[in-house]
Amino acid sequence: MVSDIPYKIYLDESEMPQAWLNLQAYLPEPIEPMLNPQTLQPVTKEDMERVFCREAVKQEFNTSDRFIDIPHAVRDFYVMYRPSPLVRAYHLEKYLDTPAEIYYKFEGSNTSGSHKLNSAVAQAYYAKGQGLDALTTETGAGQWGTALSMACGFYGLKLTVFMVKVSSEQKPYRKAVMETYGAKVIPSPSETTAVGRRILAEHPGTGGSLGCAVSEAMELALQTENCRYALGSVMNHVILHQTIIGLECHKAMQKYGLYPDIVVGCVGGGSNFGGLIAPFVADKLEGKKDVRLVAVEPDSCPTLTRGKYAYDFGDTGRMTPLMKMYSLGSGFMPSPSHAGGLRYHGMNPLVSKLYNMGCLEAVSCAQTKVFEAAKLFARLEGYLPAPESSHALRVAIDEALRCRECGAKKKILLGLTGTGYFDLAAYQAYNNGTMEDGGLSDSELQQGLAGIPNV
Amino acid sequence: MVSDIPYKIYLDESEMPQAWLNLQAYLPEPIEPMLNPQTLQPVTKEDMERVFCREAVKQEFNTSDRFIDIPHAVRDFYVMYRPSPLVRAYHLEKYLDTPAEIYYKFEGSNTSGSHKLNSAVAQAYYAKGQGLDALTTETGAGQWGTALSMACGFYGLKLTVFMVKVSSEQKPYRKAVMETYGAKVIPSPSETTAVGRRILAEHPGTGGSLGCAVSEAMELALQTENCRYALGSVMNHVILHQTIIGLECHKAMQKYGLYPDIVVGCVGGGSNFGGLIAPFVADKLEGKKDVRLVAVEPDSCPTLTRGKYAYDFGDTGRMTPLMKMYSLGSGFMPSPSHAGGLRYHGMNPLVSKLYNMGCLEAVSCAQTKVFEAAKLFARLEGYLPAPESSHALRVAIDEALRCRECGAKKKILLGLTGTGYFDLAAYQAYNNGTMEDGGLSDSELQQGLAGIPNV
Repeated sequence: MVSDIPYKIYLDESEMPQAWLNLQAYLPEPIEPMLNPQTLQPVTKEDMERVFCREAVKQEFNTSDRFIDIPHAVRDFYVMYRPSPLVRAYHLEKYLDTPAEIYYKFEGSNTSGSHKLNSAVAQAYYAKGQGLDALTTETGAGQWGTALSMACGFYGLKLTVFMVKVSSEQKPYRKAVMETYGAKVIPSPSETTAVGRRILAEHPGTGGSLGCAVSEAMELALQTENCRYALGSVMNHVILHQTIIGLECHKAMQKYGLYPDIVVGCVGGGSNFGGLIAPFVADKLEGKKDVRLVAVEPDSCPTLTRGKYAYDFGDTGRMTPLMKMYSLGSGFMPSPSHAGGLRYHGMNPLVSKLYNMGCLEAVSCAQTKVFEAAKLFARLEGYLPAPESSHALRVAIDEALRCRECGAKKKILLGLTGTGYFDLAAYQAYNNGTMEDGGLSDSELQQGLAGIPNV
Repeated sequence: MVSDIPYKIYLDESEMPQAWLNLQAYLPEPIEPMLNPQTLQPVTKEDMERVFCREAVKQEFNTSDRFIDIPHAVRDFYVMYRPSPLVRAYHLEKYLDTPAEIYYKFEGSNTSGSHKLNSAVAQAYYAKGQGLDALTTETGAGQWGTALSMACGFYGLKLTVFMVKVSSEQKPYRKAVMETYGAKVIPSPSETTAVGRRILAEHPGTGGSLGCAVSEAMELALQTENCRYALGSVMNHVILHQTIIGLECHKAMQKYGLYPDIVVGCVGGGSNFGGLIAPFVADKLEGKKDVRLVAVEPDSCPTLTRGKYAYDFGDTGRMTPLMKMYSLGSGFMPSPSHAGGLRYHGMNPLVSKLYNMGCLEAVSCAQTKVFEAAKLFARLEGYLPAPESSHALRVAIDEALRCRECGAKKKILLGLTGTGYFDLAAYQAYNNGTMEDGGLSDSELQQGLAGIPNV
């Protein structure tokens, strides 16, 4: 490729960031505290430590340190698959005939197939360091469950994964990967927990949901000795771990004197997006640089674009603290879509806050338009993207086409969070023309929003 | 990781080899010519060009040029996923408590999931350059079909893939990937070709075989205007394209003053192994360095270790020229195994020649021992390896354990050809304890060998 900028910008291992960026310490005002739903008082560290690892809780509450060191042992794991490449999408640009430059950060090269491993490793390491024996978690599409299985396999921790039932049936091989790494996988809702039994009694034959699997995993963690619960998104400490993505992008672009005009990422619970944008938000909040930060969500689960900014529960069973966030209601059941990782009713409080402050933009996409972009990218750039990531891809392509119209040489940075290897039933549906767009009617939306408590 | 040698040795794009290494030009005596089975006379370029692309044939017959330039356009594609990383297996070494150093070359990061893309891109590029409209091919496990689908999608060529029927049923998602890249996938044997119809009539309900799919793909290519057949292994031009693997290893190790004592790869048709060992064979034949080169095959298909070095057909339908190679007989049907990519009765003539000259070693492995190694590697090194690659892994681990016994600080270079994402049914069988070892009885062996013609 004739260009000064290589196709793939790799950082050396020695250039890998040694600290995560703590966005909370950059905010002009702190995010609203999580509340205990009974007392409506802020939850304490002690409350949280019954559920989560001590170090994760510490990070969750840290609003002062702008950088938090990545433990040496975590970096030792990271170097197995990091720094991840930042790739210039030359072939896509050429096809689109755009003056824009598209750079994508690809997080799908590791076996978990997504960025989720970045936080899984950290959480498993902290669990081990605290002397725990086991962790529990939930998984929807399977990326997080796989990532945490890998991390627990490495550190020798027992892991129980509650996998949304419909996913575990659709994706038996996701289950097989997790089991290969030693995890126990239970389709949720299950008979294992009280909350699972209650949901099964109320909704016989239900395919489950992420919010329900969260409830089961939390219950099991609380009832098991020397065991905690690990969450793969939504929480601020997860965003913290994911800032390695954005920090690497920032550094890699800097090496070539580049700075993005637009940063685009998909949002489900917000972990990948929050991590991707972190250093750019920091620059923006400090008035150093101006950059458009665009969150992309599916039409079927439009949390930022159509949700309400309010205190809400993180799970269906209403076991979590109340969080101030954009939400479609904890009882909201998104229509089946192929981007399982984006089917979550809520949004990380930090991302929510930034959006509410006007620091971010958000847009939602129809599923078939997303797969059109995914297929084009796969053909031109080789990598088969995950449906989740392809939401960001869709918007990046649209932005590049807009640049063609007006001749703008914008630099677009795109978070490509994972591979579509485990989503081939979705590609098959798109290829066969049987895929639906999966929009959300006003009445479904209102029904969901009505479930948000008045706090 | 505290070490002078980084975890992953990446070459810059500018360091990517610009020419393939032509092992034929290094041999002390040329390999025996392919023969026309009717006349028993050497096949001519003209004969071959009816089936294969012109440039592939030219390379097949090239015994004089030690290096053959990689076309610029092919390098433009290569940089989308190359140079691939050479990784030091620090965690595995530590677990094995071995003084040996294990380096693995990982070819599974691209969407095809294996090294096959290296030749697919070259062959599709040459087909396009020759003004062809279409290619045909066969695929067993699916790696080659996926790789060629990607390459044909990129260059805008039509592609028909005959997929071994049992594989297409076991791996519907492999089919979906190929279709996503625009290929037409036909389970083989099929009613599409005369040879397919004949095999179906003789063996109703058969699950097919690679040799039979080759026959169908060749027949369709011969009967279609402006169309040729592309093969993913066995031929010398395929090995040529795969030498990019070995050349990158050689260069990456050289950067750190390293040279392997042992190079280990798995062998099916021989393409990955031939490509991996090429520069080390060249050094060895020139007396520059001595290095052990170890080919690993499954107990169920022990072509080198138990086959016969003789002229034989490359396909079940006996349509190919006769090639001097190690073979279990073109009618040999290996017992079902999970390393579909290694279930081929023959072996590339160049690899066969080198083995016959005593330049290589060969060893075969039981399937469960292979998966034991695969699972250990997945847990410690993150990547979930393909069953094929895991054969090499098994032997590398055994060598490292031998080093522990004798205290030898050997450097082991291991070809990790692909990921196991599409082989999770196999991992599931291993996890459940239902996997069989898949050996080969003497009577099955003799029956296969009896089919080798007397030439």
